[in-house]
Amino acid sequence: MALMFLSADDPVEAWREALLAEIPGLDFRIWPEVGDPAEIDVALVWQPPPGELARYPSLRAILSLGAGIDGLLAQAGLPDVPIARMVDPSLTRTMSEYVLLATLRHHRQFDHFERAQRAARWSFALPPQAAERQVGIMGLGVLGSAAAASLAAHGFRVAGWSREAKRLAGVESFAGPDGLDAFLARTEILVCLLPLTSHTCGILSAATFARLPRGACLINVARGAHLVETDLIAALDSGQVEGATLDVFRAEPLPPDHPLWHHPKVLITPHVASYASPLTGAEGVAENIRRARAGRPLLHQVDRGRGY
Amino acid sequence: MALMFLSADDPVEAWREALLAEIPGLDFRIWPEVGDPAEIDVALVWQPPPGELARYPSLRAILSLGAGIDGLLAQAGLPDVPIARMVDPSLTRTMSEYVLLATLRHHRQFDHFERAQRAARWSFALPPQAAERQVGIMGLGVLGSAAAASLAAHGFRVAGWSREAKRLAGVESFAGPDGLDAFLARTEILVCLLPLTSHTCGILSAATFARLPRGACLINVARGAHLVETDLIAALDSGQVEGATLDVFRAEPLPPDHPLWHHPKVLITPHVASYASPLTGAEGVAENIRRARAGRPLLHQVDRGRGY
Repeated sequence: MALMFLSADDPVEAWREALLAEIPGLDFRIWPEVGDPAEIDVALVWQPPPGELARYPSLRAILSLGAGIDGLLAQAGLPDVPIARMVDPSLTRTMSEYVLLATLRHHRQFDHFERAQRAARWSFALPPQAAERQVGIMGLGVLGSAAAASLAAHGFRVAGWSREAKRLAGVESFAGPDGLDAFLARTEILVCLLPLTSHTCGILSAATFARLPRGACLINVARGAHLVETDLIAALDSGQVEGATLDVFRAEPLPPDHPLWHHPKVLITPHVASYASPLTGAEGVAENIRRARAGRPLLHQVDRGRGY
Repeated sequence: MALMFLSADDPVEAWREALLAEIPGLDFRIWPEVGDPAEIDVALVWQPPPGELARYPSLRAILSLGAGIDGLLAQAGLPDVPIARMVDPSLTRTMSEYVLLATLRHHRQFDHFERAQRAARWSFALPPQAAERQVGIMGLGVLGSAAAASLAAHGFRVAGWSREAKRLAGVESFAGPDGLDAFLARTEILVCLLPLTSHTCGILSAATFARLPRGACLINVARGAHLVETDLIAALDSGQVEGATLDVFRAEPLPPDHPLWHHPKVLITPHVASYASPLTGAEGVAENIRRARAGRPLLHQVDRGRGY
């Protein structure tokens, strides 16, 4: 019985130390130096190479280091074992923090001032108070609900749109296809935190942008495939959308010749909105290792049919 | 008895409406169409022309529309009547909001990503958690204390430096010239919210920057004269300071040929960090109009000897 750690982005030594504190004696192996593949029973992964996970015949669980598991589910030949999303207080906290930062940046017109600065132009203008600014969150799962609560606590007027209506303090709830028009019509700053499924792929499209009030802003921190990039560029160029903060893309890293890089109304960040911390995430991972070995259901287990 | 409103930046109609709701029948006159100067007993002002306030022989009080009154006190021939700072919940809230935004922007490396974007460079790097980031506020008056509390509530490790030690929950206190070294040595993101006096003019200097940890960031939302601009540019160029967010300048508007405009590590905003709202500020202004007319001390009255 051994755990395989496979990620190019996460701090492996910190994870090893934190998990050994939770499970003394844990056999922690770092891909690709994992020894006999038949000894690996749990894989803790972020973006494994396609087909790689099929090489471990004793695998009992796949634990994702990220909240989004659409990349995993899209892999051909993925072993038919339980998969768990990462749910870590730091993952949630950093996402709420990024959403608050990106929302404040549009609200307080820093995007506008950055453009004015390039022309050495003193462009004095005062925005409304936060209590007059309407922010809308698409997706009210663990991350979306936390981001909505953080924005509401800051004083913004917050609404959420989700598959089913939700009760969240200080957050107006819209649900399903019937609720989308009214949700978009009142949203000046739109945040996408939806899971990526066949229903949500391409949802950030020309039709969606056209239903926002003119001059709205977009923040996409979910998945690149939610966004139709050419539609966004057209909406920015027409002024229908006034600014965008994008952390995720259909191709990552975003290719150097992609037109989004040089669009003056777009801020690009390199998929950094949310990151787990071994200090706060190890407890849940350790519990799932124990559950996998005992044959019990995982915490935050993915429903493959639903797609998240 | 009439109130004179004099400001190019504040929304005059909203102020008139809000003050008339507080004091029905208030004689509200808008500069320069004020009629007989001898009828003006209270002036509500932001950046009046030099010498202008000396033209009103019946003046009993000057009420500032801003929190900083150094510009007023520097005017030659200022009438010897009580002066009050603006203290408005919105003024405090917008300042805390700006400081949180600018701090988050440096903390989450948006300044770094903006530079990378100009080179179409995908520059993946994860920052520490907020609980590991040390922010320091110079000045713990009404605005500084509120900003410190807001940053602490967000999870940052916050310290404050002030003339005398202060007790604020979650904020480490440093005081006086003897406390400055230790305060600077632990501060990764430095926020200036000091009043401008003969003691604080030029305090953001090469000597101060040299005592910060290498790679620190600066946020100046107090007054332009706190900063020695050439010292900041040298510190940015050497890498001692890694980024700066500046909202105030020695000359405003910042002249088009000023080197700060085009420095790649500087974000310039046009003196927009804090703004009062008639909806929340009118109550305090109305109380001060009543106090001035009754010959009573003003709320938030300025101590001219101290300079704030």
